[in-house]
Amino acid sequence: MNEASDIIATTAINRLKARYFRYMDTKDWRAWRDQFTDDAVLIIDHAVSVEGADARTDPPITGGDAIVAHVRSIIGSASTVHHGHMAEIDILSNVTARGVWAMEDIVEWPDGRQIHGYGHYHEGYRLVSTSWKIARLQLTRLRIDFSGPWQEDPRRV
Amino acid sequence: MNEASDIIATTAINRLKARYFRYMDTKDWRAWRDQFTDDAVLIIDHAVSVEGADARTDPPITGGDAIVAHVRSIIGSASTVHHGHMAEIDILSNVTARGVWAMEDIVEWPDGRQIHGYGHYHEGYRLVSTSWKIARLQLTRLRIDFSGPWQEDPRRV
Amino acid sequence: MNEASDIIATTAINRLKARYFRYMDTKDWRAWRDQFTDDAVLIIDHAVSVEGADARTDPPITGGDAIVAHVRSIIGSASTVHHGHMAEIDILSNVTARGVWAMEDIVEWPDGRQIHGYGHYHEGYRLVSTSWKIARLQLTRLRIDFSGPWQEDPRRV
Repeated sequence: MNEASDIIATTAINRLKARYFRYMDTKDWRAWRDQFTDDAVLIIDHAVSVEGADARTDPPITGGDAIVAHVRSIIGSASTVHHGHMAEIDILSNVTARGVWAMEDIVEWPDGRQIHGYGHYHEGYRLVSTSWKIARLQLTRLRIDFSGPWQEDPRRV
Repeated sequence: MNEASDIIATTAINRLKARYFRYMDTKDWRAWRDQFTDDAVLIIDHAVSVEGADARTDPPITGGDAIVAHVRSIIGSASTVHHGHMAEIDILSNVTARGVWAMEDIVEWPDGRQIHGYGHYHEGYRLVSTSWKIARLQLTRLRIDFSGPWQEDPRRV
Repeated sequence: MNEASDIIATTAINRLKARYFRYMDTKDWRAWRDQFTDDAVLIIDHAVSVEGADARTDPPITGGDAIVAHVRSIIGSASTVHHGHMAEIDILSNVTARGVWAMEDIVEWPDGRQIHGYGHYHEGYRLVSTSWKIARLQLTRLRIDFSGPWQEDPRRV
């Protein structure tokens, strides 16, 4: 490990996250699957709370296949935009790393319900053969704006 | 070509694209022109379609001078914000490269018509003397939101 | 100074700015303070003007402690999102650098007043011991959208 190898690994993880976003928003689910390890874990915090006092977290989804099936079931029919910013990536070893990303997303379902959210991804990465993959992804939220025909208080959905 | 020279070229192309955005939004059209090769090609896909089934593409604009004249005629009087994210840049040779960027833009014309769009730039770059320049720019869209006094369906404008 | 050391310094300054955003939006004011030099200067241009003809600039705030107190007094009770994009960073010496960032921010106060702004940070950095810090931050605006119960024309607030 040295500064040069760290920069090369960091560059590769930036590319990994770019593919994560691009394949998700263009609905290339097969390619999206390849960005995760087989044993990846996804954790989504729904509540909007800086201190976390009223945070509500869904049960973790475990396994790359299960993550794709779960996310596709939620946003597969929706128009989506996901952007990442301001990566903070730490290379922990030759094969492990972690990172934090600021994020923004827009999801609009066919019935007109829409969310516009902001938050952070807290992620773990692992080198599998020669490719960095996402091994853990936890999404925390700073803010979610809801619009459209929600049937109940969307902050509880 | 090696990893170090790739990182240096990638850094230069990131700077190029940053200048592209900044000079466009601050209306420094002379400086904006310098970011393109003389024979650059601009292609804008207007339709919002992931699969491209109903995509509509304007005729390409060819030549750096023609690109500046065309874009300035459309947004020269507007308030604009253009942001880029999550670059995926491939250095193809000592003098050629390509890249994909996620993007978001806001354009508001003096009469109050406004678009808020999202998509990707698909670009080609060429090293001209010692400066990387944009040789090809194709914009595809994930989503465009329209607001304000549009006279006809803006999705056809 | 050489290209490798420039890339390492640039990477460190990118991380610095990522912490600036993350600690601000998660309200970790003590950690946020550490991102500034003791003698840092903050300048905020309120007016929205590309040419600057009608720009209005607040008096500069001088000193890291004063900057934290000032910003906290304005947005401490608000829900905020701040994102940065498209850094242009110049390493000027072993201990000094400057940068420009495109930015977007959302600030919503408890009474429902909200701004959604866009612009650029123009910054100076200094290496203090082994950490890069923000020594100067000037925010210029491309656009601010106001919503909610503003009592007077918010463009004059």
